[in-house]
Amino acid sequence: MALVVQKYGGTSIGSVERVRAVAERVVETQKKGNKVVVVLSAMSGETDKLINLAYQIAKYPKERELDMLMSTGEQVSIALLSMAIHELGYEARSMTGHQARILTNSEHTKAKILAIENKYIVKELDKGKVVIIAGFQGIDDRGEITTLGRGGSDLSGVALAASLKADICEIYTDVEGVFTADPNIVPEATKIPTISYDEMLELAGLGAKVLQTRSVEFAKRYGVTIHVRSSFSNEEGTLVTGEDEKMEGVLVRGVTCSKNEAKITILKVPDKPGIAAKIFSKISQANIMVDMIVQNISEKGITDISFTVPKIESARAMEVIKSVADELGIKDIKIDDKIAKLSAVGLGMRSHTGIASKMFSALADVGINILMISTSEIAISCAIDAKFSELGVRILHEVFELGQGKETLLA
Amino acid sequence: MALVVQKYGGTSIGSVERVRAVAERVVETQKKGNKVVVVLSAMSGETDKLINLAYQIAKYPKERELDMLMSTGEQVSIALLSMAIHELGYEARSMTGHQARILTNSEHTKAKILAIENKYIVKELDKGKVVIIAGFQGIDDRGEITTLGRGGSDLSGVALAASLKADICEIYTDVEGVFTADPNIVPEATKIPTISYDEMLELAGLGAKVLQTRSVEFAKRYGVTIHVRSSFSNEEGTLVTGEDEKMEGVLVRGVTCSKNEAKITILKVPDKPGIAAKIFSKISQANIMVDMIVQNISEKGITDISFTVPKIESARAMEVIKSVADELGIKDIKIDDKIAKLSAVGLGMRSHTGIASKMFSALADVGINILMISTSEIAISCAIDAKFSELGVRILHEVFELGQGKETLLA
Repeated sequence: MALVVQKYGGTSIGSVERVRAVAERVVETQKKGNKVVVVLSAMSGETDKLINLAYQIAKYPKERELDMLMSTGEQVSIALLSMAIHELGYEARSMTGHQARILTNSEHTKAKILAIENKYIVKELDKGKVVIIAGFQGIDDRGEITTLGRGGSDLSGVALAASLKADICEIYTDVEGVFTADPNIVPEATKIPTISYDEMLELAGLGAKVLQTRSVEFAKRYGVTIHVRSSFSNEEGTLVTGEDEKMEGVLVRGVTCSKNEAKITILKVPDKPGIAAKIFSKISQANIMVDMIVQNISEKGITDISFTVPKIESARAMEVIKSVADELGIKDIKIDDKIAKLSAVGLGMRSHTGIASKMFSALADVGINILMISTSEIAISCAIDAKFSELGVRILHEVFELGQGKETLLA
Repeated sequence: MALVVQKYGGTSIGSVERVRAVAERVVETQKKGNKVVVVLSAMSGETDKLINLAYQIAKYPKERELDMLMSTGEQVSIALLSMAIHELGYEARSMTGHQARILTNSEHTKAKILAIENKYIVKELDKGKVVIIAGFQGIDDRGEITTLGRGGSDLSGVALAASLKADICEIYTDVEGVFTADPNIVPEATKIPTISYDEMLELAGLGAKVLQTRSVEFAKRYGVTIHVRSSFSNEEGTLVTGEDEKMEGVLVRGVTCSKNEAKITILKVPDKPGIAAKIFSKISQANIMVDMIVQNISEKGITDISFTVPKIESARAMEVIKSVADELGIKDIKIDDKIAKLSAVGLGMRSHTGIASKMFSALADVGINILMISTSEIAISCAIDAKFSELGVRILHEVFELGQGKETLLA
């Protein structure tokens, strides 16, 4: 008998029919002899509807009250699923974040889970009930309702799996799993059967929308195996799990592209020691993350510095730089938000060379100019003109032989 | 400085604009130097929408899960109103039934309030905050979410007023107050400035929809003065309060008509001692309330017995009688659900005679046949053919001089 945590996203329970379908899947899982804990998001569209109401009423709704408001979405879901399971003749028990004792800090709208007092859940499981827990929400030590931020329900699922030492945490969504590239861009993209936490982190952080970074980090820390799969089919999805030796055999696991960054270029900066440091310490003080940095070769004692920041923080970054422009002798700043960050990710890069040069020449061959480069142990990223992003993904997917049937062709 | 409890119903907060209007009224009340506790219903239509979802999913949704589901409606309301008050620059704090410590028994969907641990509310009031509490809901001793049944938010308001020893409990609704008759039937009906608990109970129980019987009973027991008024105007409404001497001076406070009963007639019952007792004890054992009873004069040792029961229980009552028909020699039973119960209510009846005869002859004058009669200390009710109900109300309203301007005419 296994303990299975199943998390269903908003589209998976987006209608009465979908709630019924999920109930059947849950019951099937239990009938196979498993204990089942279900974690639910709000029905699709509900959270946005609530947030929309809030912003109609207040320009800056208080975060405590936003949490009070938003947490109702998941509460509706758990009650409905519990009813649907009863209707099938099985026992279920819904629990709010408060009742499930998901304890968080007090940072409303982006709270962190501190602990889960799981004895109430275990008690109900031991009675043979399916336990259905509201995702995305918790309580702080004063009994205040908190929420965990976007993607918080995934995190609830993984945290519950960790706390209950579940055998698996199934994350149900509307896609079949994690793919070698976005299938909307690359029709030949294949489902990845198994991926390591670190690869998934690079892919998640680099624009793949399937799993939130925080959930994967949490899963990695506590060794929770995640199974990302579709609630609309019975196909196996993608296992996100710890590394094994076989994994390093794959050079590139997937290719992804993000358009969430903007490139800022500071022109004609005096090329003196400490100038770059001053600029970046100011930006860092403003809590803005700089990703890629390029400094041109100096000519006549002046140089250009380019770097990327998250697009949503680019306006603020510009303000910060302008506020110190005079002091640092900065005269001209340019911003380019039409860039994309193209990445190849794979554990094999640790032990194999040549990936970067293969990537650069493949892009060069089709005339894509590389604006900036950054690398990690298991990923290589290039900033390119955004208009080439789909082309870039397709080229890399092809050159690293990730497509359907490629294995067969190579054999 | 007074402590004011304000309860707003669903139509009073039925839209973003209405929530803003309520926020302004609450702030005005606080600016006058009062401490304010607000109790809210769900936005109009929301509870029905949730219940509808539940019944799409399950034929008999589990009551615990219905409470889990329905309680979200009020939680949305309190968050939104709190935001709207913040937006006006004032401090507010929303509280679920759980956070406000409204403790109930465990009878889901119809729980009874056992106690309110009001220290958390008092603490926030003392900080100068408006406290906004979700009506209709509470928790039991295991932390389960409960709801109080239809009209439960009124009850929450009155119970909080009692617990906090509030100076007044204002119940805001979409009508101006309690009227001498339904203004839709009698255009000359006037707003009653002050009414006693007992009169209100007779009127509420007899079909006036403004206040739920349970709330008035609670208010009477704890001496809470209720002010029923409209959230759409600044007019004074109706005070529901304890009796004073002046009140007995009014013979008839109001006239009402209910169509919630059905008349059952058992024909040709042997007129022997104990037969009627047997019939009514069977009905009572089935937990069905019998209201009015008439037994015809016996002819040749047989008689007819007629009585009224709540319409929704009439089918069950018929079954009960049929099950003992043979034993009691009952051969023929008739049911008539096209009857109405017309009532006149007033404290003055205690000390004045002649009300009943005035009522009967007024009805006779326009040809309305009285089928049955029941009386209490402060009310007289007649069962009549339902088609005469509006006419009956108008006639009684006129004969007891309850119309606008009547007082002036009599002076």
